[in-house]
Amino acid sequence: MLKRERMQRMLEKLDADQLLICDPNAIFYLCEKWIHPGERFLGMLIRKDREPVLFVNSLFRFDEDLGIEKIYFTDTDDVTKLVQPHVNPKGILGVDKILEAKFLLPMIQSQIASGFINGSSAVDWTRAVKDQEEIEKMRYSSHINDLAMAKFKTLIHDGVTEVEVADQMMRIYKALGAQAYSFPPIVAFGKNAADPHHMPDETVLKEGDTVLFDVGCIVDNYCSDMTRTFFYKKEPTEEQKFVYNLVRQANEQAEEMVKPGVRLCDIDKKARDIITEGGFGKDFTHRLGHFIGLQDHEYGDVSQGFDNLTVAGNIFSIEPGIYNPSVLGCRIEDLILVTEDGHEVLNHYPHEIEIIE
Amino acid sequence: MLKRERMQRMLEKLDADQLLICDPNAIFYLCEKWIHPGERFLGMLIRKDREPVLFVNSLFRFDEDLGIEKIYFTDTDDVTKLVQPHVNPKGILGVDKILEAKFLLPMIQSQIASGFINGSSAVDWTRAVKDQEEIEKMRYSSHINDLAMAKFKTLIHDGVTEVEVADQMMRIYKALGAQAYSFPPIVAFGKNAADPHHMPDETVLKEGDTVLFDVGCIVDNYCSDMTRTFFYKKEPTEEQKFVYNLVRQANEQAEEMVKPGVRLCDIDKKARDIITEGGFGKDFTHRLGHFIGLQDHEYGDVSQGFDNLTVAGNIFSIEPGIYNPSVLGCRIEDLILVTEDGHEVLNHYPHEIEIIE
Repeated sequence: MLKRERMQRMLEKLDADQLLICDPNAIFYLCEKWIHPGERFLGMLIRKDREPVLFVNSLFRFDEDLGIEKIYFTDTDDVTKLVQPHVNPKGILGVDKILEAKFLLPMIQSQIASGFINGSSAVDWTRAVKDQEEIEKMRYSSHINDLAMAKFKTLIHDGVTEVEVADQMMRIYKALGAQAYSFPPIVAFGKNAADPHHMPDETVLKEGDTVLFDVGCIVDNYCSDMTRTFFYKKEPTEEQKFVYNLVRQANEQAEEMVKPGVRLCDIDKKARDIITEGGFGKDFTHRLGHFIGLQDHEYGDVSQGFDNLTVAGNIFSIEPGIYNPSVLGCRIEDLILVTEDGHEVLNHYPHEIEIIE
Repeated sequence: MLKRERMQRMLEKLDADQLLICDPNAIFYLCEKWIHPGERFLGMLIRKDREPVLFVNSLFRFDEDLGIEKIYFTDTDDVTKLVQPHVNPKGILGVDKILEAKFLLPMIQSQIASGFINGSSAVDWTRAVKDQEEIEKMRYSSHINDLAMAKFKTLIHDGVTEVEVADQMMRIYKALGAQAYSFPPIVAFGKNAADPHHMPDETVLKEGDTVLFDVGCIVDNYCSDMTRTFFYKKEPTEEQKFVYNLVRQANEQAEEMVKPGVRLCDIDKKARDIITEGGFGKDFTHRLGHFIGLQDHEYGDVSQGFDNLTVAGNIFSIEPGIYNPSVLGCRIEDLILVTEDGHEVLNHYPHEIEIIE
C-alpha cells in the first residue's frame, strides 16, 4: 500500500516539479512492494500537482492494488516514449541517482523535460529519517544480529577456514528468524583482518589469530550491520591491546556525542582524532560510518566530506578500524539511532577484549 | 594482465573518441580483476590515442600490475574533477550504459566532453562474441549445471517446500565445483510454475504437481542457466502433454535454426509462431532468450525487438515457456553457442517428459 505520509514528506523536500524514482528500495519504501527489474526499467513518477504513476514491465505484473496507477510496458517498448507523456516538458525532472545512462541519455536527448537534476535528495533525506515503525524493525534486526554474533563464535575451532565459518552463518541467521544477509559476511583471520574489505577465503585459523566478524542480516526487510574483533586462544600482546582499545575508545566516544544537531563530519573527526593521537591515523583508511535501513548502505555518511546535521530518526554505523598488518587489524562497529534527546546504540554485544578458547 | 586484443576490438567499434567503462564485469573482462565498488565510482577510461587509465577508490587498493595506470581517489574526492583532466573536452565521451545519474549529470553539467553517448555497444558487442577460452569456460559451466540438474531432482519428495529445495542447491553446486549461483535459483511447484519470475516460497509439494527448476551457477567466473520442468508422481494430462510438447518443439526448432548470420528476432519468431499456432501465444509472455557470459544477463536479446545478426561466438539462452495457470506452467531452457557452421547446445540434460517418483 502506498505510504501517503512518506510520500508527503518526500514531496515537501522536492526541489523539482517532478521526480522519477527508480531504485527498487525507494519504491518498496513508498508502496511496500518489491519489484526487482534487473536490467529492465522500473520507475515511479511523483508529481506535485498530480497523482503518482508506476511504470512496470509486464513481466513483473501483479494484482495487488498499491494505491497507485500502474502503467505496464513490454521489452519492445521504448522507455523514453513510455515516460514522456506523463512528464511536464516545461518543468525540471528530478531523476533517481541510480538511473542508468542507457535510460537517462535518451530522455535528455528527447528533451522530455526542461532540465534534469539528481532528485534523489528528496528520497534520500526522507529515507534517512526513520519513522517509528522503521525504528522498531531496525532495533529488532540488530537484536537478531547480537544473538547471531554470540552463535558465530561457536563456529570457531582449530583448523577451520574462513569460508567454512562463513558458509554456516546463513543457517544460524535463518534459525533466528532472519530472511537473508544484508551483505556477504566478512570473516577474517589474523592478518586478513587488516584488509577492511577482505572476503572469506581458505585461510586456516591458528592460535593467536584475531577473528574479525563483520556481519548483518535482513529481518522484516530492514538491515543490521555489526563488527566485532576477537582473539583466538591467546592473550593479545600489549601493543595489540593498545590498538584494540584505541579503536574501542574511538567507537565509544564517537557514539557518546551522537544527538540531534551534530555535524556528521564532527562525529567522524572525534573518532579519527583519537586514533590519530594514538599514532595510528594512517591505518584508519575509511569513513567512520554509513546510513542504513532497507539497504545496508543508504545515502548519508559519517565522514569528513559530509557536514549535514544529524536529526532524530537517523540510523547509521559507527565503525572505526585500525588496519596495521604488523600489529593488528581491528574494527568495532555498532548501529546507532539518533533520538530526540540523544542516542540509542542498537547493538548490545560487548566491546571488551574477548578471547575465544 | 590486460587483454590488449580485446581492448583493441573494443576501440575499433567505438564511435566516440573516448569511452568510460564502469561495469565491474566489463572491467573484469578487460583486466581479469574483480573490483566491486558498491555505490562508489569505478571507471576505466579508454582513449584512441592514449593509454587507458583506471580510476579506483583507494579503499580497493591492490598491488597487482594490470598493465594499466591506476588513479586512486578517496570518498571525499569529486568524481567529475577526478575524471575531467583525462578526458578530451573537444571529443565525444561514450559512457557506460550503467553509469548512474549521480555521476553522469555533473559530468554533463561541467561539460567535460563535447557530447555524451551511450558507448556500451563497443563493450557489449565485444563481450557478446566469446573467444576460445571463454567458450571452454561456458561449456564447462553448463556441464556442471547439467550434473546439478540431475542431483536437484533427488531433493524432491512428499511434503518438501520450494524454499527447502532451493536452500540445498548451493551445497550441491559447491560439491560439483561451482563458485556461486549465477542467479537465485527458481524452484516452482504446481501453479507457481505459471509465474515466470516466481521465487521459492513455503509452497508444499504434492502429487501431480509440476516441478520447475530454473537454475545456474558460476564456474571460473562464467555463468550457466538452464530450465527443466518435471512432473511429480503422476502422468501429466493429455492437455499438459500437449503444452509441454509445444514448448519442447519451440525450444528445439528454434535451436535448430541457430547458425551465423541469422536475425535474432527470427529465432524468437520461430518459437513464438509454434506456440501461437498451438493456441498458447498469449501465455508466452517474455523474450525467447538473453545473452550470457560473465553475467547471467548480458547485452543481447533473442526477441522481436532485436534484429542483429548472430555471429560465431555468441552464446545465448533459448527458453520458450507457456504460463497458463489452468493447464500448465512450463519452460525448457538451454544455452546455445553459435559456431562457425551452425551451433552447439551447451546443455545436455534431456528434454523428454520426466516423472519424478
